Amino acid sequence: MSAYATVTTEDVEALARIVGQDGVVTQEDEARLLVYGRDETADWQYRPEVVVLPRTTAHVAAIMAHATARRLPVTPRGAGTGLSGGALPVFGGIVLGLERMAQILEIDVANRMARVQPGVINQVLQEAVGKHGLYYAPDPASWGSCQIGGNLAENAGGPHAVKYGVTKDWVLALEAVLPSGEVMRTGGKLRKDVAGYNLTQLLVGSEGTLAIITEATLRLIPRPTARRTLVAPFADLDTAARAMVAVYGSKVMPSTLEVVERAALDAAAEHLGRPVPHQDAEGWLLLEVDGYDEATVERELTRAGEVLLEADALDVLVANTPAKERELWAVRRCLGEAVKKQAAYIECDTAVPPDQVPALFRGVREIAARHGVRQISYGHAGDGNIHVNVLTDHSDPAERERRLGPAVDEIFDLAVSLGGTITGEHGVGCVQSRYLAKCRDAAAIGVMRSIKQAFDPLAILNPGKVLPGDVPAPVGSTRRGART
Amino acid sequence: MSAYATVTTEDVEALARIVGQDGVVTQEDEARLLVYGRDETADWQYRPEVVVLPRTTAHVAAIMAHATARRLPVTPRGAGTGLSGGALPVFGGIVLGLERMAQILEIDVANRMARVQPGVINQVLQEAVGKHGLYYAPDPASWGSCQIGGNLAENAGGPHAVKYGVTKDWVLALEAVLPSGEVMRTGGKLRKDVAGYNLTQLLVGSEGTLAIITEATLRLIPRPTARRTLVAPFADLDTAARAMVAVYGSKVMPSTLEVVERAALDAAAEHLGRPVPHQDAEGWLLLEVDGYDEATVERELTRAGEVLLEADALDVLVANTPAKERELWAVRRCLGEAVKKQAAYIECDTAVPPDQVPALFRGVREIAARHGVRQISYGHAGDGNIHVNVLTDHSDPAERERRLGPAVDEIFDLAVSLGGTITGEHGVGCVQSRYLAKCRDAAAIGVMRSIKQAFDPLAILNPGKVLPGDVPAPVGSTRRGART
Repeated sequence: MSAYATVTTEDVEALARIVGQDGVVTQEDEARLLVYGRDETADWQYRPEVVVLPRTTAHVAAIMAHATARRLPVTPRGAGTGLSGGALPVFGGIVLGLERMAQILEIDVANRMARVQPGVINQVLQEAVGKHGLYYAPDPASWGSCQIGGNLAENAGGPHAVKYGVTKDWVLALEAVLPSGEVMRTGGKLRKDVAGYNLTQLLVGSEGTLAIITEATLRLIPRPTARRTLVAPFADLDTAARAMVAVYGSKVMPSTLEVVERAALDAAAEHLGRPVPHQDAEGWLLLEVDGYDEATVERELTRAGEVLLEADALDVLVANTPAKERELWAVRRCLGEAVKKQAAYIECDTAVPPDQVPALFRGVREIAARHGVRQISYGHAGDGNIHVNVLTDHSDPAERERRLGPAVDEIFDLAVSLGGTITGEHGVGCVQSRYLAKCRDAAAIGVMRSIKQAFDPLAILNPGKVLPGDVPAPVGSTRRGART
Repeated sequence: MSAYATVTTEDVEALARIVGQDGVVTQEDEARLLVYGRDETADWQYRPEVVVLPRTTAHVAAIMAHATARRLPVTPRGAGTGLSGGALPVFGGIVLGLERMAQILEIDVANRMARVQPGVINQVLQEAVGKHGLYYAPDPASWGSCQIGGNLAENAGGPHAVKYGVTKDWVLALEAVLPSGEVMRTGGKLRKDVAGYNLTQLLVGSEGTLAIITEATLRLIPRPTARRTLVAPFADLDTAARAMVAVYGSKVMPSTLEVVERAALDAAAEHLGRPVPHQDAEGWLLLEVDGYDEATVERELTRAGEVLLEADALDVLVANTPAKERELWAVRRCLGEAVKKQAAYIECDTAVPPDQVPALFRGVREIAARHGVRQISYGHAGDGNIHVNVLTDHSDPAERERRLGPAVDEIFDLAVSLGGTITGEHGVGCVQSRYLAKCRDAAAIGVMRSIKQAFDPLAILNPGKVLPGDVPAPVGSTRRGART
């Protein structure tokens, strides 16, 4: 069925000669091998034929040259925290894990830049630059374990994107290995550089399908030293969305602006084992302001609170202590786990123009009701990036799929009809690729295919991802989550 | 020599059927035809065979389909203000001028976005969104005449880039016509969208060699309502550069941070016909702070002034009146024209890591001295983007070239050796393409060529630009500037 070669004993020996015996995981350690065949997307288990763990760019180059010569599929992998199956080795072959390339190569304080290897954990980078009074803003929910390489591959977002942008906005230069094994550099320690096509931005978000990023130069800013949070409950989500637009108009620039609607508040309360403030509201806006000066931040927070009250917030709860702040954020932060515990679910990483958020919520409720499924929605309201979960309690997998599948399909259609997209920050991977044509026209998909062909004529690099195409079924289920 | 077809009477008739007779400029109006064969780069005159001025995306699509069928080269053109020859029809053929596609299609206040056609003049957009209290930050020097389409094609910068980024940082979505005539859409009215490869960012800065942008969705922010400027003279440029780094460390975020070195101050004084403040200093830093609150901006300006004095500025001159502010900015703004009046010159749009700016200045002076040419340097210090001009008074063009050519070559080598690039904001075009391999490795240039091939297999779209290759000689000289 597949045009790919199968990994042989000779291949494993050749790969071990490149990275050393301790850098290869084989069928002799089947349990460890299988760890590299799953991620946080679903309970799908795939099976790599071999896992290779390079320590240097030269290792990656040699691995790719070998894979090209043999036509072996290669799936690059960071921490496996992805939510679209980007790191799943759906065609078997080689999993190329970048976890041993985890050095912060340089923190350049004068130029406010950092050079890192792809395996550096996001939080480790944050803390290292923080010691120099610097700040790297992209902070996906998994920041404690996810790696910068995966963040770059998926163009990861996070709650601070509303003020600071997403991963792509922080990348100045890359080193990457092409499928042939050639090493390429893009950009520089430069805030401005227009010498040729923007290959940096083409690689960021390409989900490891064009090249393997082996080094990145990231920009940094002075670390905000003041930060305050408030919560505003609303009687309905239209009012909440109008309030959000009013905050925009007020020239307060929140550093986060999250929305949590009622079903999500209920799920959080259940998960936390305590009621949450204003749980009976139809939705919360959770707003944070940051900056370099306590007084200015305090003034902005006060102004934001006034604007929200003028816009018919039921209340404004300001977190006056770190403990109170943690308590409010705990509601938002637990939602991923809270949903997982509820029932079998599918998460739709929709994004719409910010003013269409209420229409999205209304439409999702209608779709869920029609298909007899539950829905729990929350997300980055300021960016219009709403995580819509549809859930069902049915125990039969076929019945789950029969209910959830059409609901997901309609939710994506709804998002696109509102001017939106099928994925705001999770990526396409192998989970969303069948929906790509909903939000990208045939000409754009054709161009994407021709770019893929230009980089990777043998289609060995992360096959089955991003572009629509057949994806082999999993070899089993991890049965870790309830996600269908 | 060229593999392209020649424009025939039948081609002109076919193009006139698409855009109407008033949308075609032919050899019957040779003077007007020739206007479309030059730009602001140099005194090079090329000759289009025909100029076509579409009014709609459908027009552009039909023109490209015709050009593909006939294999005619097509050079897209905005206002012709470019500085790298991007709009020069070096292979003749069709110039596709976008000046009649000049509508602001929508200003979406709630989402803070604007949808525009490519022919909208930058300043026109600024003023239109300003009426809604909104702000579009990229403002290249030519903002009064340059068009958004050209800004997108070249990924234009400007003095506010140090705080607000360059054109690419403001683009959310594009409509573009492929060489085949197919129409493609990328992105959306979305702050987050990771559905497939980032074709938006690939097209921005591709200088019209991959597709013709026919519509753009741009993000906007609330318009800063407070703005203050100061000038700090320095006894030497190393001190100035250290002061710049100290400003960074102070958490003041200037909205512009420009450097003007001594030769440029002299040229400005000569051009303006009056001495400029601290003309005997080795360099100026010109710093602006903006924001939404007079008191905060005042405080930040004061803090910046203190930091600069602590860092051994000779003085700090705060512009306390709009007239004084205009006077200081006039020095910076006149430099392009002031240099033009001096002598035959070549401008090198270097960019280096910001802390390498003093090393760049030192090296440039040494190179100029060694080649017996003058140099005048200034630019966007905060971005490390320095416009280095080398000048000679020789009247013989061959002698000019003999002196300036090697100096330019060495200046680019110097910039690259400092971690820099051959163009920070002007683009590669046909002027810098021979230097591209100085700052891009063979693998990256190979990938760029394969991307060009994927988009434009017949190589009809803006041939002779970006990628290194032979470029036909101009048909004449405009003799407008003294640039060699």
